[in-house]
Amino acid sequence: MPRDPRFDPLFQPLKIGPVTAPNRFWQVPHCTGMGNRHPRTLAAMRGVKAEGGWGVVNTEYCSIHESSDDTPAIHASLWDDHDVRAHALMTEAVHFQGALAGVELWHGGIRVSNAWSRLAGLGPVSAMAENVPWQSARMDRQDVALLRQWHRAAALRAVQADFDVVYVYAAHTYLLAQFLDPVLNPVDWEARIGLVLALAEDTREAVGHRAAVATRIEVTDEDGTGQEERARLLERLAPLIDVFDVTIPDYGTEMGPSRFVKEAPLENHVAHVRAVTGKPVVCVGRFTSPETMLGQLRRGVLDFIGAARPSIADPFLPKKIDEGRMEDIRECIGCNICYAHDGLGAPIRCTQNPAMGEEWRRGWHPEDVPAITGRADPVLIVGAGPSGMEAALVLGRRGVPVLLAEAEDSPGGRVTREARLPGLSEWARVRDWRLGQLAKLPQVELFRASRMGVQDVLETGVGHVLVATGSLWRRDGTGRSNPGGIAGLGAVLTPDDILAGARPGDGPVVIFDDEGYHIAAGLADLLAAEGHEVTYVSPGGAVAEWSAYTTEQSRLQARLIGQGVTILTHLALAGRGEGTAEFACVHTGKPLGVACGTLIPVTSREPQDGLWHGLQGKGLTTLERIGDARAPGLIFHAVHDGHRAGRALFAPPEGPLRREVIAL
Amino acid sequence: MPRDPRFDPLFQPLKIGPVTAPNRFWQVPHCTGMGNRHPRTLAAMRGVKAEGGWGVVNTEYCSIHESSDDTPAIHASLWDDHDVRAHALMTEAVHFQGALAGVELWHGGIRVSNAWSRLAGLGPVSAMAENVPWQSARMDRQDVALLRQWHRAAALRAVQADFDVVYVYAAHTYLLAQFLDPVLNPVDWEARIGLVLALAEDTREAVGHRAAVATRIEVTDEDGTGQEERARLLERLAPLIDVFDVTIPDYGTEMGPSRFVKEAPLENHVAHVRAVTGKPVVCVGRFTSPETMLGQLRRGVLDFIGAARPSIADPFLPKKIDEGRMEDIRECIGCNICYAHDGLGAPIRCTQNPAMGEEWRRGWHPEDVPAITGRADPVLIVGAGPSGMEAALVLGRRGVPVLLAEAEDSPGGRVTREARLPGLSEWARVRDWRLGQLAKLPQVELFRASRMGVQDVLETGVGHVLVATGSLWRRDGTGRSNPGGIAGLGAVLTPDDILAGARPGDGPVVIFDDEGYHIAAGLADLLAAEGHEVTYVSPGGAVAEWSAYTTEQSRLQARLIGQGVTILTHLALAGRGEGTAEFACVHTGKPLGVACGTLIPVTSREPQDGLWHGLQGKGLTTLERIGDARAPGLIFHAVHDGHRAGRALFAPPEGPLRREVIAL
Repeated sequence: MPRDPRFDPLFQPLKIGPVTAPNRFWQVPHCTGMGNRHPRTLAAMRGVKAEGGWGVVNTEYCSIHESSDDTPAIHASLWDDHDVRAHALMTEAVHFQGALAGVELWHGGIRVSNAWSRLAGLGPVSAMAENVPWQSARMDRQDVALLRQWHRAAALRAVQADFDVVYVYAAHTYLLAQFLDPVLNPVDWEARIGLVLALAEDTREAVGHRAAVATRIEVTDEDGTGQEERARLLERLAPLIDVFDVTIPDYGTEMGPSRFVKEAPLENHVAHVRAVTGKPVVCVGRFTSPETMLGQLRRGVLDFIGAARPSIADPFLPKKIDEGRMEDIRECIGCNICYAHDGLGAPIRCTQNPAMGEEWRRGWHPEDVPAITGRADPVLIVGAGPSGMEAALVLGRRGVPVLLAEAEDSPGGRVTREARLPGLSEWARVRDWRLGQLAKLPQVELFRASRMGVQDVLETGVGHVLVATGSLWRRDGTGRSNPGGIAGLGAVLTPDDILAGARPGDGPVVIFDDEGYHIAAGLADLLAAEGHEVTYVSPGGAVAEWSAYTTEQSRLQARLIGQGVTILTHLALAGRGEGTAEFACVHTGKPLGVACGTLIPVTSREPQDGLWHGLQGKGLTTLERIGDARAPGLIFHAVHDGHRAGRALFAPPEGPLRREVIAL
Repeated sequence: MPRDPRFDPLFQPLKIGPVTAPNRFWQVPHCTGMGNRHPRTLAAMRGVKAEGGWGVVNTEYCSIHESSDDTPAIHASLWDDHDVRAHALMTEAVHFQGALAGVELWHGGIRVSNAWSRLAGLGPVSAMAENVPWQSARMDRQDVALLRQWHRAAALRAVQADFDVVYVYAAHTYLLAQFLDPVLNPVDWEARIGLVLALAEDTREAVGHRAAVATRIEVTDEDGTGQEERARLLERLAPLIDVFDVTIPDYGTEMGPSRFVKEAPLENHVAHVRAVTGKPVVCVGRFTSPETMLGQLRRGVLDFIGAARPSIADPFLPKKIDEGRMEDIRECIGCNICYAHDGLGAPIRCTQNPAMGEEWRRGWHPEDVPAITGRADPVLIVGAGPSGMEAALVLGRRGVPVLLAEAEDSPGGRVTREARLPGLSEWARVRDWRLGQLAKLPQVELFRASRMGVQDVLETGVGHVLVATGSLWRRDGTGRSNPGGIAGLGAVLTPDDILAGARPGDGPVVIFDDEGYHIAAGLADLLAAEGHEVTYVSPGGAVAEWSAYTTEQSRLQARLIGQGVTILTHLALAGRGEGTAEFACVHTGKPLGVACGTLIPVTSREPQDGLWHGLQGKGLTTLERIGDARAPGLIFHAVHDGHRAGRALFAPPEGPLRREVIAL
């Protein structure tokens, strides 16, 4: 389809400094967990974004010197010629698609632990690094002079690597933001802003003839005040800067999970920047709606639509708008699993886009799957949860006839259930986008309310069967704290029961969170809001500890506190007493009884692979259990495994994974 | 000096399978944070151990297949030819010194998160992985067959890489230990032990002609029972195994920090293995005393002295015994900073041995420093804490005249203070070993009780000055929770005050732990034991959260509970009230007053660099602040920085750090 001309403004080129962006889609710098550890993985991924229509594609945070080493987090670097060659793989891939490539020059200042380099961190003061009990050095004049040399040298290397945009990075609590922070750095205003101005000037002078100079900077101080002083700083920077990438210090909002933050939350904060600076402005907002994007341009808020997560969930978002295929946009669900994996020191992945991070390693393209050559045998997929739907979609697109059988009336499996937790309605996009795409494929038939037994499967006569029957939460307490389960737990409700509509009877509800992600906390939130007296118990030290990786932890804990939930920590479930759930301190073993009418153990899940077992030895050509039915994971695991399975059928076996190795 | 013949038994060769160990010093497999990420760093480090006299030098845990991927922890792998070439660097370095090289083949089973490979974990059951909310697949027959193929292929690659010892790794809660665990894997005995026996047999058959087959295995089940069944297993394994590397499942004891566990804690647990198996036995015990080692052989407990940490603190330990230089042994202090860095995804380092991990990158040798050529100018070092003493030692060994001036009567600085915390007496080895070594250097003079002002320094007439004046804990609350400090905190006691002998007056003591390592918890322990009413408050979720990296967290928390300390979490210090310390919930801001007579804020430290500032522009040839006086860190930082400074003086400037990069 041709583009709806209403959206033309999104596709107008714009000159920034010495270069011209081909359109208004700006993939802001974002972490990938690839950096200097996985350069080819990275180049292929960024190249696919450019192919999908992002007019400017940036790196992640790119260290200018060994004293900014964020080990074990993976980041980019421009320390030497080797790094120049590595980045050139990315700029080449991006340029090949006609897009601009940008780099975010970075020094972490006091925040980095320098666990690899063993150098001291540097900052305006000597202060504690992040997550480790050691401090930076306070920079003296010599250190400042060195820093400027390093930054300049990195900018020159950036141009050598053929970058078109070079960022002076003054946000996100890193070195320049530390200088700007009046609490951390209580010196007078000119002294605080001096280094940012100096680096902007240095960068313009060194590379401004070849590359646009950008800055990523916050419009307020850390505590949300100081907007006027900051506006004066933006004004001062304007002659040196070609494009302003602006944000606020509240990372929990900028990077907000959909549970707490919806589309375009920064607009009110940044609407003045364009007028103040007279320069093009970019800002993120988890934009997935073309109408919202258009509004940002129309109303003069932004010149470029900034995106990190939406470009991960759908690298082809701009192209789909361009081609009038709005309904094909695979919208980000705001689960922050991408960010979580960067935090885990691994390449990012995406719940919605299983090809994310697999572009080079497995040759997966987010839009194209190889068609079957010759006649395709039909495939039966049992279970229309995330893995089953994704497998059906891949196979259907390959031209394979698919029978997708779902036991329930509504497809979606766990996605449908979990999207009922407070704040998670956007997670249903995993289901809804796939249902929409499947509806376009005549060779895929979805059968609802069709629970399949062994005999039912065999009677279809289909020789290729994927069992995607999911998993269910256990009732017996088996999990990390009790690998052998707990005898005599009696009647309990599981998360599946609750999410299917069951509710506790009289008496207090006790939820034991042996998993540590969001399910137990979400149930506590849900039931407390409904008026139940709820106690949340964890063997860890905080509510939903793993959700720190998705930036949800602190707000989840605040929410439970606000709901009046009693929070008990450092306790493992040990059994059931008369009107109590019995726990033991994980450090001392000391017992504690907690008043309990209904116990909800959130410990681990049991793969529902009975059908797969039953089909063994029945003469099927293909029989595979996929997704949670094999290994209960998060939704992204299920989607990824379904995708893999859909590609693997009728294809030569995959060899070992391609990996990036150390030069020997 | 020649060897004391009493210690001859430690130096007798011993045949194991087809190879012969040159002596009885066995560096057991231990993590390094180097693995397949830093192969040259690793090869140089292992080579130095062989040079120092370790007769057998092993790798860390070495993955046999992509489904055992411990990202972000760094491990070895033997997945392909590239890995073979990487390991060959290590075996060559070890063989060059006449030692044997061993490899520990590893599959993590349910424990690994496979965050890089994105494959499902595998285990006897589907169970939660470590630290992430997803589960493994339960292995079916096909999976078991594949696992045996992978293990065999890895063993063959090990021989290709020229390893002399190949481990079947059945301990430490990894895959084979999971099969052996009757709680996790409640099947009958033969079914539990089948896989271990099969892999032992496979390995013997595949590589037993070339390499000794070892196993690392526990002598009891996870809960400490089952010793008799385990002994029967060891008997069954004996014909297949050439050497038994045995341990117990309590990792907190095996890897015990000196705070809780002293030398040779496993002897009573493993004393029967030699008789049961009739094969050579190795076991660790943080052995640093030659007498203890000799006792293990004499009494028939062990055939090989196993060591990880002692070989890190002193790679030349065997050679020093051989040469009768017992007093030169640099004893491990049991702080577990090595292990902590592996946990941080970085190459290990060592508080005692600053050269650990720097052998390849910086060319540092743990015993040798390059001598000065020509006349050496004298150097004044102000401060005989860990950095000052180490710098003096390095400079003295290089032939430089050193004046080491210490303000206090006793040298050691923070080491002397911190060793007064409960259980930390072994940490004083950092000071005592250096004092002993310095006493051998006539060109180094230590001046006690010699506080130096600017004028004092200038009056010495020495042109090269290193300022190693350390740091002190702040009194104003400045730290992570309050980067700008807290107005009106009033009189407080700091950790330095307490460790110098000051004690709280009447009323409850409140300790605010904004640092998160062990200082605040140690003070709580100390003061509670003296009878004070103590409340420990942390913005985190647990006592001394960072000490999880050193395996101390849970026992520290148990100790405080046992001492009757009140533990409050998720609270940040906000100020002082009438008889209270005022806190705020870190999630909601809700205030809480805590009864407080004496407040001890453990927040951050102030570099004591006044002397360094005062000496600016006074015409000194060299003026550098080192250690905590520049960047307050842990003791290992100070020792490392002192070592660096000692090498850097009178030497050409160091270039960028050598690093291992991805092949492009």
